Amino acid sequence: MSDVSGLPLIGAAALRARAAARVLRTLPTDTKDAALRTMADALVERADEVLAANAADVEAAAADGTSAAILDRLRLDAGRIAGVADALRHLVALPDPVGDVVRGSTLANGLQLRQVRVPLGVVGIVYEARPNVTVDAAGLCLKSGNAALLRGSASAHRTNTALVAVLTEAAQKAGLPEGSVELLPADRASVGELLNARGLVDVVIPRGGASLIQRVVREARVPVIETGEGNCHVYVDASADPATAEAVVLNAKTHRVSVCNSAETLLVHRDVPFLPRLLSALADAGVTLHGDAAVQAAHDAVVPATDEDWATEYLSMDLAVRVVDDLPAALDHIERWGTGHSEAIVADSARAVADFTAGVDAAAVLVNASTRFTDGGEFGFGAEIGISTQKLHARGPLGLPELTSTTYVVTGRGHTR
Amino acid sequence: MSDVSGLPLIGAAALRARAAARVLRTLPTDTKDAALRTMADALVERADEVLAANAADVEAAAADGTSAAILDRLRLDAGRIAGVADALRHLVALPDPVGDVVRGSTLANGLQLRQVRVPLGVVGIVYEARPNVTVDAAGLCLKSGNAALLRGSASAHRTNTALVAVLTEAAQKAGLPEGSVELLPADRASVGELLNARGLVDVVIPRGGASLIQRVVREARVPVIETGEGNCHVYVDASADPATAEAVVLNAKTHRVSVCNSAETLLVHRDVPFLPRLLSALADAGVTLHGDAAVQAAHDAVVPATDEDWATEYLSMDLAVRVVDDLPAALDHIERWGTGHSEAIVADSARAVADFTAGVDAAAVLVNASTRFTDGGEFGFGAEIGISTQKLHARGPLGLPELTSTTYVVTGRGHTR
Repeated sequence: MSDVSGLPLIGAAALRARAAARVLRTLPTDTKDAALRTMADALVERADEVLAANAADVEAAAADGTSAAILDRLRLDAGRIAGVADALRHLVALPDPVGDVVRGSTLANGLQLRQVRVPLGVVGIVYEARPNVTVDAAGLCLKSGNAALLRGSASAHRTNTALVAVLTEAAQKAGLPEGSVELLPADRASVGELLNARGLVDVVIPRGGASLIQRVVREARVPVIETGEGNCHVYVDASADPATAEAVVLNAKTHRVSVCNSAETLLVHRDVPFLPRLLSALADAGVTLHGDAAVQAAHDAVVPATDEDWATEYLSMDLAVRVVDDLPAALDHIERWGTGHSEAIVADSARAVADFTAGVDAAAVLVNASTRFTDGGEFGFGAEIGISTQKLHARGPLGLPELTSTTYVVTGRGHTR
Repeated sequence: MSDVSGLPLIGAAALRARAAARVLRTLPTDTKDAALRTMADALVERADEVLAANAADVEAAAADGTSAAILDRLRLDAGRIAGVADALRHLVALPDPVGDVVRGSTLANGLQLRQVRVPLGVVGIVYEARPNVTVDAAGLCLKSGNAALLRGSASAHRTNTALVAVLTEAAQKAGLPEGSVELLPADRASVGELLNARGLVDVVIPRGGASLIQRVVREARVPVIETGEGNCHVYVDASADPATAEAVVLNAKTHRVSVCNSAETLLVHRDVPFLPRLLSALADAGVTLHGDAAVQAAHDAVVPATDEDWATEYLSMDLAVRVVDDLPAALDHIERWGTGHSEAIVADSARAVADFTAGVDAAAVLVNASTRFTDGGEFGFGAEIGISTQKLHARGPLGLPELTSTTYVVTGRGHTR
């Protein structure tokens, strides 16, 4: 379980994390919560150190010609540090999943069976630019009793180093073991080692774009939870209320275009009479429409759509639009092009709602509601480490319970078979 | 989602299964149960066809010099066919997990949130000799609404072909779609294709020895549930009742030596006064003892143990025995050598029980009970497809609920953010 040959970059950190995980799994909630509070306070108190490191990262990135948008994601200020500190304090208020009894029974032979939530152990997180993930991920892992192996981007490495120094010093002052939070080198090779550290790392969660996900899937010998793309659809049924359709479609597309739960394709039943008005409303809101022939016939400014449009997660003010013959045709389109993230229907027919809900295979199905609601915060889970588009272990927002496994505890009085 | 280039051996079957999965996920329990009954009846009615094919497999295997033990696993007779048919009928009596609401709430904004169990979709099973797995796996997959892609061993391929012909004909007669159960070619390359069929196959479950598991972990780009080795320990604490210790240890080791939940190492606290009697009882039962110096001192016929013994899943009447200084030393040994399957403690001290339960990281912890109880049938789950030793998705016996995923269904009245 502890072979670190072949792991020159991460081996020592992984062993420290492994040892820390054995302690963390037995800590009471009070101790973990006290550590989260201490960590939050330390971030605010030592904000200057973090900001100095961040300024160096931002300066180096700017010198490399990094875009303004990426620089903005990288940049911290006192307000953003207060925000991540508040996020840690918010975790204190959330219930600790460790120790929850998922199911329990007394068997016919008198054996007492309890399935109890336990931490996963050592959780690896691979993520890009944004330094707030360093704090969020560390906090979520610790609250759920896991040690965190963090592998952030090279461009944020000075910032991440400063953040982890503050966090670990505070955590140890509050009684958490050394190794509870470890920052890994930002080399490309450190990801490869993390993905191969069987027996040392219990799960790796990649947070990033398609190329990172592809690499992880190709190389990983440790279990992975994919937080994938969202090519999300809104289907407007023939039974849809016009005002509801307009509100939901506009919100799903335009509320925040850069996130995985925004809509990328609109499917409209051919009997919907208000298609022209819907398209005008979208165009008026600044949306570029990419449509099939029927959509082009219903509105002036429509770019002809190709298969490329059905496949694309735009993450911009673009929207693919297709007229479909019926609800099964909409389901076929979603099955062919969807990524299993969030699929919405606007309909007043209970039959249509039932058929859509049963027929769509996705993390979330939204009925007369915007795709933007697929979110741990909106669902009331309080915090999330990402949105899983895989079917195993956890599908949808990954909150604290999704960072745990279970153990069956079987208690007898000398029972034998 | 349906790119089958690069899948010459399994592509067509995988596409049929994918299409079947879309239908299966919407079928009511009644339809699935009727199909299971029809399949069970057909197996009994057409037993002669299956037995003829099986006789050819057994003859070919015998001509190849296959061992008597393997031949016995391969061989079917009328009684064994009746047994697998009964297993299908038993599935009818189990609750259908599909549609279960795992959690539900009404959010502050009035959105209704329900997390609903749905089938995984297409489940690949890779297994060795025993042809009864063909029927068990098909039945478990169908009851949980999944299409099954079965890849059995070459030595049982005639038998499996006959079994799947009977099962699929019966299933389709009962209204299940074509592609619900597909038998894949027994070539070595078909496993590789299955492990790479991203977008077509939702999970692969290997059932077999360490070399199969290693290959799957190395090659898989689809999600995998490992059903792994069981290097299970029994720790006898200083507070243990002598009679309980003897009963549990003997049962865990000798009840059935060839299975993953039997004990392979005995750890005994140095203050246990009855070690000589315990060792004698084991030796009298025919167990070969491999022990450290303290164990050798306590009994005549003890083979000196090496690290190899601590690491070995004997699956035989051999047992490694070690005397430990205290409970933490037992936990260290289990952390170092265990495979996370089943770990037992015999103790009368509540403190010792609590420390062991909190400190062991395994699928099952057994308190004053034999490791042999880690079993889907014993746990009351009714049926299992294996015992998972991984921490993600499912840990311990894999029953019907573990063959499902979930979808969040979010219902609003035109809700937007």
